[in-house]
Amino acid sequence: MNMNEMAVLAREAFYSLSAESDERRNQALLRMADILEEDADVIFSANVEDLAAAKKEGLAVPLLQRLKFDEAKLAQVQAGLRSLASLPDPIGHTVFCHEITEGLKLYRVTCPIGVVGVIFESRPDALVQIASLTIKSGNAALLKGGREALRTNTALAGSVRRALEETGLPANAAQLMETREDVAAMLKEDRLVDLIIPRGSNAFVRYIMDNSRIPVLGHADGICHVYVDKDADLEKAWKVALDSKTQNLSVCNAAETLLVHAGIAEAFLPRFAEMLREKKVEIRGDERTRRLIACEPASASDWSTEYLDAILSIRVVDSLEQAVEHINFYGSHHTDCILTENEGAARYFMDRVDSAGVYLNVSTRFADGFVYGLGAEVGIATGKIHARGPMGLDGLTTYKYKLLGEGQTMGEMKSGLRQYTHRILPESCPL
Amino acid sequence: MNMNEMAVLAREAFYSLSAESDERRNQALLRMADILEEDADVIFSANVEDLAAAKKEGLAVPLLQRLKFDEAKLAQVQAGLRSLASLPDPIGHTVFCHEITEGLKLYRVTCPIGVVGVIFESRPDALVQIASLTIKSGNAALLKGGREALRTNTALAGSVRRALEETGLPANAAQLMETREDVAAMLKEDRLVDLIIPRGSNAFVRYIMDNSRIPVLGHADGICHVYVDKDADLEKAWKVALDSKTQNLSVCNAAETLLVHAGIAEAFLPRFAEMLREKKVEIRGDERTRRLIACEPASASDWSTEYLDAILSIRVVDSLEQAVEHINFYGSHHTDCILTENEGAARYFMDRVDSAGVYLNVSTRFADGFVYGLGAEVGIATGKIHARGPMGLDGLTTYKYKLLGEGQTMGEMKSGLRQYTHRILPESCPL
Repeated sequence: MNMNEMAVLAREAFYSLSAESDERRNQALLRMADILEEDADVIFSANVEDLAAAKKEGLAVPLLQRLKFDEAKLAQVQAGLRSLASLPDPIGHTVFCHEITEGLKLYRVTCPIGVVGVIFESRPDALVQIASLTIKSGNAALLKGGREALRTNTALAGSVRRALEETGLPANAAQLMETREDVAAMLKEDRLVDLIIPRGSNAFVRYIMDNSRIPVLGHADGICHVYVDKDADLEKAWKVALDSKTQNLSVCNAAETLLVHAGIAEAFLPRFAEMLREKKVEIRGDERTRRLIACEPASASDWSTEYLDAILSIRVVDSLEQAVEHINFYGSHHTDCILTENEGAARYFMDRVDSAGVYLNVSTRFADGFVYGLGAEVGIATGKIHARGPMGLDGLTTYKYKLLGEGQTMGEMKSGLRQYTHRILPESCPL
Repeated sequence: MNMNEMAVLAREAFYSLSAESDERRNQALLRMADILEEDADVIFSANVEDLAAAKKEGLAVPLLQRLKFDEAKLAQVQAGLRSLASLPDPIGHTVFCHEITEGLKLYRVTCPIGVVGVIFESRPDALVQIASLTIKSGNAALLKGGREALRTNTALAGSVRRALEETGLPANAAQLMETREDVAAMLKEDRLVDLIIPRGSNAFVRYIMDNSRIPVLGHADGICHVYVDKDADLEKAWKVALDSKTQNLSVCNAAETLLVHAGIAEAFLPRFAEMLREKKVEIRGDERTRRLIACEPASASDWSTEYLDAILSIRVVDSLEQAVEHINFYGSHHTDCILTENEGAARYFMDRVDSAGVYLNVSTRFADGFVYGLGAEVGIATGKIHARGPMGLDGLTTYKYKLLGEGQTMGEMKSGLRQYTHRILPESCPL
């Protein structure tokens, strides 16, 4: 089947899924949890093959860990599905009801987006997470996982589709793309595909943006900052800055740059440098940093580099304003933190830093859909449009206006035969 | 000044405007209403020059009407500004507060989008409307009007900027672009410009989408449908269908195609054809339509043409399902109406038609920001992402997450030293 045919089937699946009840969509998720257990042998043996092939190709150990799908991962995925099924329905809510004129009511009602293309990394459990989020929200998904996980993903997608079928829902609401060529072909289907969520490298995300009319939500970079203000509490600052950098080095919400106010740099930096050394983190500092601690010099490109590694760039700034300017200029609008006990400084930072997440006295590592109470996330968005930060169910919904009339015409309004009443009513849409 | 410099200034203006109080932004709108009156002579004489030049170039009469900016237009614009100033602040609202763990609260707070590029048609009053909507919502605007209105727009933009300055707000929150080259240059500024809202021809909107990484909201086409169901009330159907097509021929929410259920076509069409003839509307019908009424034959391309003229295409369909399929396939996801007294048919149509507006028994002409109670509109969006239908103030806002902590780390969460509490609190963000 070619990509256009797949997209047509996805669109049909979306139309039918979007009109299904919440109960039915939840049943599919619960059935999916059971079927994954029934199919466990098939899935595990596919995963063993993927792992063997990946080892042969010399995949790094952390990547092999992510590729693994075993009993423990299965249990996690099942728990996630059951928890998702218990969340309230994200679609069909009346956001407001506005009476336009007598007998004419406008309802803004939440609804699914449509056909969503998601490209994700090697972790096969992501397939089930993403498919379940899209099904719960009434969308159809075109899914592309990592090449090295293809056997596992094929088995998982089979179980997902069986769960849909057995619940009487369209199996084509979850289709697996197999090749990079499929992805390239999907980018052309702007009449059939409504949204693309790429999770991958910076270059890959930019390639998608440059080659499609379809809207893209996601993030290219995760250049997160920690700013230690002159009014920071030192103990908190050491603890939070260290956690932001070192709790997990290879994730997008890890800090890559530390900014320190000149007024506190001498008190903060020497002890912090020791803490980093214990964690084997290399420091790249600007000139003023290097006067206070021994480290490599930072070059201009360091400020815009996402290391995803045991490296931290450090700059001493003259003011809060300079810190905010640095973050807005070099950052990626993902998640940035200020450490301060000064409310005015906190307010300035949180109003002016133009990022999806602005944090006061807490590690950047908290930027995550589960942590935020969104259930799970389909991606993290750093753009301004539609959804920002971790995208859960409500990032996968939009709204439509339903207008229920009794034969009203614009001619009657213009002639004054009818008057605008313009009032908000506390009503839900009956249709 | 080149476009990059303008965009840098717009970005600075956005940062400073976004932190201003609602009171100050409303003051600027009220001052603007006064200044426009003070500057009326300058504006009117610029408009007289624009009109004279346009006449010389042979601009059509309806376009000359739109280009005109006189006492009546001024009064409308002033009333719009005062009404906008009285609307509630769209930014700074806490959407929800979620406690993550003890002493750690996450707030989703509405905020402006940033720098918004708006390209609009020849109507100069649109400049003030759009600038005031962006200022009220804390955004900075780069504005490009029709070439034929340049003198009027330059005068109006001068008044807008003076109102900002005199209120202590950044004048660069409203900058006028003068040439098509400016627009082309803006498309490259994806690090500085957050959103583009083009109001113009289909080809122009597609040109923008194909040449920029910046998200685009708006609509290329307005191919609106009226579907007369077999259970329609004939009187309502005649009235609503006629109004949808003829109340204003040249607007995006006018109907372009009528679909009629075969079971009611014989009762509905002959009388409706007479009504259209009285209004001098040409009919292009499919074969079954032509068996019932005299009209031109519709070709395949008619179903996907936005006439914006006294032409209506008509097709007889076998079923509600076929009508919905036709609309989703040929339509532009703008506004589509069903005429029926059957609740099941209405529900099916409203759930399955994939458009920003789905109407029951009411003219498509109601798709408008003022009519919807949004105050005014900056554009009408037919995509799925961010905003759909008429875009008012809330289409110009997004949100950020503010996380207020006391030094919490992810290490403490992972080690079990702290537990997730995950509860929604009825609190507003204090920062």
